[in-house]
Amino acid sequence: MTVRVGVIGAGWIGQDHIRRLTETVTGAQVTAVTDIDAARSQEAAAQVGAEVFADGGELIAADDVDAVLVTSWGPTHAEHVLSAIASGKPVFCEKPLATTAEDCLKIMEAEMAHGRRLVQVGFMRRYDAGYRQMKQVISSGRIGEPLMVHCAHRNPSVPESYTTDMAALDTAVHEIDVLRWLLDDEIVSAQVVLPRATSKRYEHLRDPQIMLYETVKGIRIDLEVFVNCQYGYDIQCETVGEHGLVRLPDPAAVDVRTTGQRSTEVLTDWVGRFVHAFDTEFREWIANLATGNEPTGPSAWDGYAATVVSNATVEARKSGRIVLTDMKPRPAFYATRDIA
Amino acid sequence: MTVRVGVIGAGWIGQDHIRRLTETVTGAQVTAVTDIDAARSQEAAAQVGAEVFADGGELIAADDVDAVLVTSWGPTHAEHVLSAIASGKPVFCEKPLATTAEDCLKIMEAEMAHGRRLVQVGFMRRYDAGYRQMKQVISSGRIGEPLMVHCAHRNPSVPESYTTDMAALDTAVHEIDVLRWLLDDEIVSAQVVLPRATSKRYEHLRDPQIMLYETVKGIRIDLEVFVNCQYGYDIQCETVGEHGLVRLPDPAAVDVRTTGQRSTEVLTDWVGRFVHAFDTEFREWIANLATGNEPTGPSAWDGYAATVVSNATVEARKSGRIVLTDMKPRPAFYATRDIA
Amino acid sequence: MTVRVGVIGAGWIGQDHIRRLTETVTGAQVTAVTDIDAARSQEAAAQVGAEVFADGGELIAADDVDAVLVTSWGPTHAEHVLSAIASGKPVFCEKPLATTAEDCLKIMEAEMAHGRRLVQVGFMRRYDAGYRQMKQVISSGRIGEPLMVHCAHRNPSVPESYTTDMAALDTAVHEIDVLRWLLDDEIVSAQVVLPRATSKRYEHLRDPQIMLYETVKGIRIDLEVFVNCQYGYDIQCETVGEHGLVRLPDPAAVDVRTTGQRSTEVLTDWVGRFVHAFDTEFREWIANLATGNEPTGPSAWDGYAATVVSNATVEARKSGRIVLTDMKPRPAFYATRDIA
Amino acid sequence: MTVRVGVIGAGWIGQDHIRRLTETVTGAQVTAVTDIDAARSQEAAAQVGAEVFADGGELIAADDVDAVLVTSWGPTHAEHVLSAIASGKPVFCEKPLATTAEDCLKIMEAEMAHGRRLVQVGFMRRYDAGYRQMKQVISSGRIGEPLMVHCAHRNPSVPESYTTDMAALDTAVHEIDVLRWLLDDEIVSAQVVLPRATSKRYEHLRDPQIMLYETVKGIRIDLEVFVNCQYGYDIQCETVGEHGLVRLPDPAAVDVRTTGQRSTEVLTDWVGRFVHAFDTEFREWIANLATGNEPTGPSAWDGYAATVVSNATVEARKSGRIVLTDMKPRPAFYATRDIA
Repeated sequence: MTVRVGVIGAGWIGQDHIRRLTETVTGAQVTAVTDIDAARSQEAAAQVGAEVFADGGELIAADDVDAVLVTSWGPTHAEHVLSAIASGKPVFCEKPLATTAEDCLKIMEAEMAHGRRLVQVGFMRRYDAGYRQMKQVISSGRIGEPLMVHCAHRNPSVPESYTTDMAALDTAVHEIDVLRWLLDDEIVSAQVVLPRATSKRYEHLRDPQIMLYETVKGIRIDLEVFVNCQYGYDIQCETVGEHGLVRLPDPAAVDVRTTGQRSTEVLTDWVGRFVHAFDTEFREWIANLATGNEPTGPSAWDGYAATVVSNATVEARKSGRIVLTDMKPRPAFYATRDIA
Repeated sequence: MTVRVGVIGAGWIGQDHIRRLTETVTGAQVTAVTDIDAARSQEAAAQVGAEVFADGGELIAADDVDAVLVTSWGPTHAEHVLSAIASGKPVFCEKPLATTAEDCLKIMEAEMAHGRRLVQVGFMRRYDAGYRQMKQVISSGRIGEPLMVHCAHRNPSVPESYTTDMAALDTAVHEIDVLRWLLDDEIVSAQVVLPRATSKRYEHLRDPQIMLYETVKGIRIDLEVFVNCQYGYDIQCETVGEHGLVRLPDPAAVDVRTTGQRSTEVLTDWVGRFVHAFDTEFREWIANLATGNEPTGPSAWDGYAATVVSNATVEARKSGRIVLTDMKPRPAFYATRDIA
Repeated sequence: MTVRVGVIGAGWIGQDHIRRLTETVTGAQVTAVTDIDAARSQEAAAQVGAEVFADGGELIAADDVDAVLVTSWGPTHAEHVLSAIASGKPVFCEKPLATTAEDCLKIMEAEMAHGRRLVQVGFMRRYDAGYRQMKQVISSGRIGEPLMVHCAHRNPSVPESYTTDMAALDTAVHEIDVLRWLLDDEIVSAQVVLPRATSKRYEHLRDPQIMLYETVKGIRIDLEVFVNCQYGYDIQCETVGEHGLVRLPDPAAVDVRTTGQRSTEVLTDWVGRFVHAFDTEFREWIANLATGNEPTGPSAWDGYAATVVSNATVEARKSGRIVLTDMKPRPAFYATRDIA
Repeated sequence: MTVRVGVIGAGWIGQDHIRRLTETVTGAQVTAVTDIDAARSQEAAAQVGAEVFADGGELIAADDVDAVLVTSWGPTHAEHVLSAIASGKPVFCEKPLATTAEDCLKIMEAEMAHGRRLVQVGFMRRYDAGYRQMKQVISSGRIGEPLMVHCAHRNPSVPESYTTDMAALDTAVHEIDVLRWLLDDEIVSAQVVLPRATSKRYEHLRDPQIMLYETVKGIRIDLEVFVNCQYGYDIQCETVGEHGLVRLPDPAAVDVRTTGQRSTEVLTDWVGRFVHAFDTEFREWIANLATGNEPTGPSAWDGYAATVVSNATVEARKSGRIVLTDMKPRPAFYATRDIA
């Protein structure tokens, strides 16, 4: 049975997901599109023969929309997700689930009141082959209890619209989610260390930043976020356990030897790095819906935790202090509804 | 527009492609299945709601079959491919295109008489990301004119039914195709060197073998085929040019450090190694058909060349001599109909 | 001209250096030995035909001692180094130069009063091929201005006598020196983060520890010290600059593929890791002395800086606070007397 | 006791070994030098305070020459080695031991008549850490019985004086020796395959060449010799056994990431690649002599085998045929006098 998807937000990422649901993922069809920019909405819809809706509310209500994909501007996410829940329709929401902890909690309450999981949040790294191998190694006990994680998240450059807060809210948030999942643990505090700033940036932007986290179990995480590193898009992650370590591989690329150098290409955009993860993410989401199952990807609880921790990171940077995350206890509803 | 595919041969590889066309490739639907084993045919068809046909001829003739996929036993390939051409239907044929050069030539003649490419042969390595990068590096001139290629094709083990000839016909044939494509060159001679045989094999099987090829341009290829290497499925390829070299990467896998060892997993089956290549192969095939284009993958000419060279390899081994391949000249029809 | 060396302290490291000066470094001869354990002194001296002295003072005064090597217990270093300076004899002192900043300052004053460099401190990493390559890359400008350094210093295990303070004083001190040299910068503050402790340790020992440093230029360093990591002796260092990074290589070791694994050996002791560095260190020291030059290795100033920073690290851990190092300004005498 | 060495031949390699024996290897002193070029002889001797001799005969006879080092032009080696044996003095001869099998046999006979090993041949790869690790892995049984070895020997370029024969006699000879030692086996046949020649060479030179060898045990070796590969000095060696393989590592070098590339340096000269091997080779040679032991490095038998096989390789190339090596049986004298 084909899952008919309505897409709210036809910007760059929305268009990419529309293409993915149409060309790459079987069992799905994009039947409805809406965007605050009507022309963009028309264009995106036309390419796949979808209907255009005036706004998210109408789209969610439409009969031929079985599931909703929210890829609009972050601050609008909560409203659309809550509408979808109110309509009893499954909703895939790109990160963040909501920009405030309060809105995330509202979503969780609505979903619990509904009684079944409807929400999945778009943290695609859990679907990356490397992270999945890493989780397998950790779970197998081969490296012992995890004690530390060293990470780096580097982009070649960002547009001028990128702000200092976004290093936590848009960039580090991916590590925040995937580390919670890898470690099966919650983050209790955040600290931010500010190295000398790169000269290859906008005046308004503080880059790089080093984020330090502590988990309930006492695991320590250090995460370098460097979004103007120039040389490439480079994701590093190393988990050190009591008797071994596991490290994410660099993407496979041919080894070339010329003029005294052995070299391999470093990717320069994240699309190439995570394209298979995105495909798997949507393939699994659609497969779950098509078979009538609840989604198994990142839940509203995961969305809440990511928002709380990334907001705490911003506060830690601004205050220069260690900030406790002060998360609510996890409701039983979410305890067993996570990806394996 | 959905491409309706009829599948001839529902063995292991046929079933895997049926699953692929159903679950992984958009725009395709398996509508017809036939197999010499009626029960197997029924079961494979039932899983995807396809119709069962008594034989290949009926299946090819069926109205709701737009394109044919031949995954039956090798010696039957030529007959089915010729039938498909006679019906003017596109046909994807797993290797070999035919077991004899004569049959390959007949297929080429039929296709040329038809006037449009209908045939694609299932050499999936051309769709592997690593080989594609390697081709790009060679084409860019970064390593200069290619002079030598060193390859290894290793399987952990093979079943008892695997014969000494199959090292050339079933195993080396993948390198024969991908090297012709990588180098844009044809193979003119074959020699086989027989190392001391592994003791971890069947009495009847000569394993490993080293195949030596020379191309029109004078490039020399050495290819180790070792199908009982025990340790893993391992594909190596290094092209050495006048001022540099390019080497296929090992698949990316997490780096684990424990007890005095740094280790990464080596795959133990070829499915994992080439799964993305298979997906891309079929995605591109279906996309071409859906848009009314000729297939752009390996052509009947490529199938002919692979059969000629792999047969010459068998003869070289049996005779202990260098065997010239004696290929016909390439018809103009095939000169520009190859994958970019 | 052979340099006649008197060795104060014939413990493990003293004996190793006696062997090195005898068997591996040309132009040197060990002529005198002393140790608080008379039997050990006798034994070490007998193996190389050296004379035994009752204490450091007598040894330093001996006519056939051209240069002094101090490898005794840390708290005794300052006394011997000061005696050597008083006698106008070159002295190589294993780290630490002295356990207190005050004693280091006294040594610097004595040396400056003497008017020529006599002191070299035993930080061998500056002689390691990998660190030297890294310094070359940084100095060349290939990666731009350094912004961050990520390090790990892991030992498989330590004896029960190893204390929590030693993580800074004995272990991190190597990174403290080599990073000052790599970055041509001084450390201004230290912070210590304490991950969940490994269960594979003694009750009294806090392990691992993460040390965070800031330099005058604002470079941020994070250093994992984990001395019971079980799996091996593993030294990692990555310097991230404004437009690139440089990372220390793992030691070269054969790649072995067996049973689904590709593996290389990880060293399990530091001797193997730095044996060539030790050899080069002493070869260069002896070559300088033999040609009448001042030593060019780590100076008393470097010894002072290392002691100040490692002591600040201990204080930071004990207090849970960021501790400023409060170093004196570098005397002009030491400004140009450093290794190139 | 210091070993006093007389050096015959003060060309580039002779001078390098004089420097090595003086500066790097303890327990040795170069006391005598001779060269056909008197000025060169004078200069080399003056630098280390050695005496100049008119010819090899006089040098060998000198009282203060305990051991002889032959680094003169290849065709003169046999004469000097025979003179040294006649004088009962240990002699280290750079490869080749002699240019003909006959001369090698004469040397073996003379040495056997003397009754003790005096001769060591300068095949330094046996002292390389990577090859030693490889031998250890093979001997341990971890990869099972060796079946194949794949090698490459690449130089960036060679001077115009380098001839096509030298690819076997001067270049491949290193692999011939080290593989005999690694495999504990003898080579019984040689074949040469000639790829398209590189355009970046002299007209007179056939480059690259691929040499194929078979051993007594049936192991097959393929060796690419490419002495104008432009990009670097690159030594590759992979031994494939019945259930695993072992591969020589690339030399350790820092990993640099800039502008979309991850790169490590490839060496461009062999000195850097084998400097530690040369040092160890001479250190072990001197240590054996100093303690009155026979040399344990490559023997006259090894020199004979290398000459026979490299000459057979030249003949194979010229004839275009597989050439049997036709080696004499190994005398018992040499059976147990090989390096461990």
